[in-house]
Amino acid sequence: MAKPEKHLLIIGGNAAGLSAARRARRNDPRLKITVLEKSGIVSYGACGLPYYISDVIKDEKALLVLPVDALVKDGIDVLLNHEVVEMNVRERSVYVRTAEQFQKIQYDWLIIASGARPIEPDIPGRDLDGVYTVRSLEKAAQLKNELISGKHRSAVVIGGGYIGLEMAEALTRQGLKVTVIEQKSQVLPYIDSDMAALVESEMTGRGVALKTSTAAVRIIGEQAVRGVETDGGEILSCSLVILAVGVRPNADFAGLAGIELGPSGAIRTDDYLRTNVLNVYAAGDCAQVKNTVTNKFEYFPLGTTANKQGRVAGDNATGRRQKFSGVVGAAVVEAFGLEIARTGITEAHALKLRMPVKSVTIKGTSRAGYFPGKKEIYVKLIFDFLSGRLLGAQMIGKEGVAKRLDVLSTALQQKLTVQELSELDLSYAPPFAPVWDPLLIAANQAQKLVWARRY
Amino acid sequence: MAKPEKHLLIIGGNAAGLSAARRARRNDPRLKITVLEKSGIVSYGACGLPYYISDVIKDEKALLVLPVDALVKDGIDVLLNHEVVEMNVRERSVYVRTAEQFQKIQYDWLIIASGARPIEPDIPGRDLDGVYTVRSLEKAAQLKNELISGKHRSAVVIGGGYIGLEMAEALTRQGLKVTVIEQKSQVLPYIDSDMAALVESEMTGRGVALKTSTAAVRIIGEQAVRGVETDGGEILSCSLVILAVGVRPNADFAGLAGIELGPSGAIRTDDYLRTNVLNVYAAGDCAQVKNTVTNKFEYFPLGTTANKQGRVAGDNATGRRQKFSGVVGAAVVEAFGLEIARTGITEAHALKLRMPVKSVTIKGTSRAGYFPGKKEIYVKLIFDFLSGRLLGAQMIGKEGVAKRLDVLSTALQQKLTVQELSELDLSYAPPFAPVWDPLLIAANQAQKLVWARRY
Repeated sequence: MAKPEKHLLIIGGNAAGLSAARRARRNDPRLKITVLEKSGIVSYGACGLPYYISDVIKDEKALLVLPVDALVKDGIDVLLNHEVVEMNVRERSVYVRTAEQFQKIQYDWLIIASGARPIEPDIPGRDLDGVYTVRSLEKAAQLKNELISGKHRSAVVIGGGYIGLEMAEALTRQGLKVTVIEQKSQVLPYIDSDMAALVESEMTGRGVALKTSTAAVRIIGEQAVRGVETDGGEILSCSLVILAVGVRPNADFAGLAGIELGPSGAIRTDDYLRTNVLNVYAAGDCAQVKNTVTNKFEYFPLGTTANKQGRVAGDNATGRRQKFSGVVGAAVVEAFGLEIARTGITEAHALKLRMPVKSVTIKGTSRAGYFPGKKEIYVKLIFDFLSGRLLGAQMIGKEGVAKRLDVLSTALQQKLTVQELSELDLSYAPPFAPVWDPLLIAANQAQKLVWARRY
Repeated sequence: MAKPEKHLLIIGGNAAGLSAARRARRNDPRLKITVLEKSGIVSYGACGLPYYISDVIKDEKALLVLPVDALVKDGIDVLLNHEVVEMNVRERSVYVRTAEQFQKIQYDWLIIASGARPIEPDIPGRDLDGVYTVRSLEKAAQLKNELISGKHRSAVVIGGGYIGLEMAEALTRQGLKVTVIEQKSQVLPYIDSDMAALVESEMTGRGVALKTSTAAVRIIGEQAVRGVETDGGEILSCSLVILAVGVRPNADFAGLAGIELGPSGAIRTDDYLRTNVLNVYAAGDCAQVKNTVTNKFEYFPLGTTANKQGRVAGDNATGRRQKFSGVVGAAVVEAFGLEIARTGITEAHALKLRMPVKSVTIKGTSRAGYFPGKKEIYVKLIFDFLSGRLLGAQMIGKEGVAKRLDVLSTALQQKLTVQELSELDLSYAPPFAPVWDPLLIAANQAQKLVWARRY
């Protein structure tokens, strides 16, 4: 008699969920694998949405990274428009709602990859026509149609984080007059204020109105948006409002079922992405991730992490013991012609942790000094001035930033000191770097401030 | 009574020599420092010469990185047109020839930073008008004048290394019909033949005639060049010949004085850049450098290394004990629209060393798959298949190659395995990388071939 079929159930059909499904299938050709997806599509490139809205990417189909057919051909059942509303980890089942029915599904192993959703601030008027968040392809398509039809002349973006800035740029490209409102005293809270100031000056130089230390208290309008009222009493008139105040993990349903959550509301896991419940794993934007600089679990939702964690969860759920080694917090965004990148922890964060921290900021160039087309690059290194250990870095420039940062992320992952950083053998040719790469110039400067110098 | 003034003498006024001089001055404000330079200029950007010849860089003055005045103001004596013809390490003196005289100079410490010179192959006709090497700014200016005057229609470049390819591109840009002759079976001997094939196909696609496994036996002409005869008996007619068969260390005079040389003719040093003679240091293209992948001293002349070694020699000559940690062999060249980068050792080299080596080559993209303007990137990883340790890497593509390679150089310097490489947290945004960076795709592939897998 054949053994009864074992069932791996995966909640969420984007980066983490599908990586997990495909990895599990490769490990075990006979396992029954089901992916539950709340929306009508799987695996679209969410990070591409602002570029789709700006029309840098013309066709929404380009964002559909993986068609459902490919999954089905691999023997992965994909159930679209299936929303998990409740879980019962004792009886190993989840309750799913579709348009037609309410259904119970049993599992042997469960991977929660339910992602994140935009925070919808509790602000009056948020349900008016013309108020958008940026997370789903359907809504993005609707917004883009409105932009192309010329419906909007001016927009207010609430939130000055990555998505807020990308959207501000996208709307500017579409010819709108854009105002960005940010509650904190600076844009991009993941970088230090001195570096953020460079971004702010570029933004305003390009005609974006920026209001930091400002909160939106009300979106004005009857049916459609007419403006935004700030806590300073100012009325910013506009027909379009983008809410970009961040995302939060989609994990409440898991918490209610007894899966342990962290302070951010994201699912707690160990290094093997196991939750506190046997045979239940979590991966991607619904889960915490270990920051290897601080050695603490934090909420740092990013697509790259989701993809990697999905694989690891898929491995562990199919009996291959695989560790997820954590992240250093590498991230980059392009906005207003600037590449803005960061890794590790900020100086402000290190000060809050009462670490013996110092920083240096230098201005270098992306190419040899004599090479045409060279651009300025600002590099900030944050380091422990007793040991010299690198703690974080930020970089801003018009070219050559994103991948240069990856060198620093690699250095962080290896816990290098700024002295070791200054000894790196980096490639050189006039079109790509000066003979002293900005990274090395910064490391040389930093070294001088380290107490534990080698001679 | 004041102590007699101590004297640091530096032979060579380019990257290594001037870095050494400036570092020594910073460490010791009172030391007498003299730089002897054979030619009439110091510190020009030699790596920029091909770009100056192609007219990407318009003005030769751009290549003069550091004017003599700045050095003199720092109290560094710079003696131009002073050629060292002999040394006597017992009496701590060097003999110098100028246009007017022959002079003896005493030193307390000596740094030899005499650089490299182009190998002038022993080929009949090499003294004809229209035969050039690419090392001095004076000759480059003369060549550029000839190109602008329209004197040349076609050129033969002898040598398919970095400089050969850069010159082939420069001359192509200047409208010449170019043939490249290379004695070996491939261009760019520092990369593996499979990767070199990608370069060769791009070159020929752009109209450059390429003859590998071909030697030049004679340059034909009476006063001026009329052509080149190959070992196959073919006559390639041309009015311009570029000799680019590599460089050799400028260290014979040191060898004759008892300074120990390595098999390549470059000066042997230890990790502190000390030669076998007390108080004599060597730095830059005249010296060997430790390859930290093989742990052997090799000849690998590059401007970045010269700059770094110069500083270290300047430190050690002024009593600050400083180690030069070696190189991994990172290098990049731009030619024919390709960025061609390499680090560590080649697969061919590893096989010759009888290492347990395997490699993977993958094709990725420079940006997200859905992002306009993305370019292909080929990544080859070379690794020890028993331990998984990375040994080398090569990368070719039309953008995003040079600084991506630096991640691998950092990984090599830290002796990472391909498994560890696959765990790197690299920055991601659609304009700069796919969510799985080509580096990670390659590392994931490589992992599968490693015996010592972790589970």
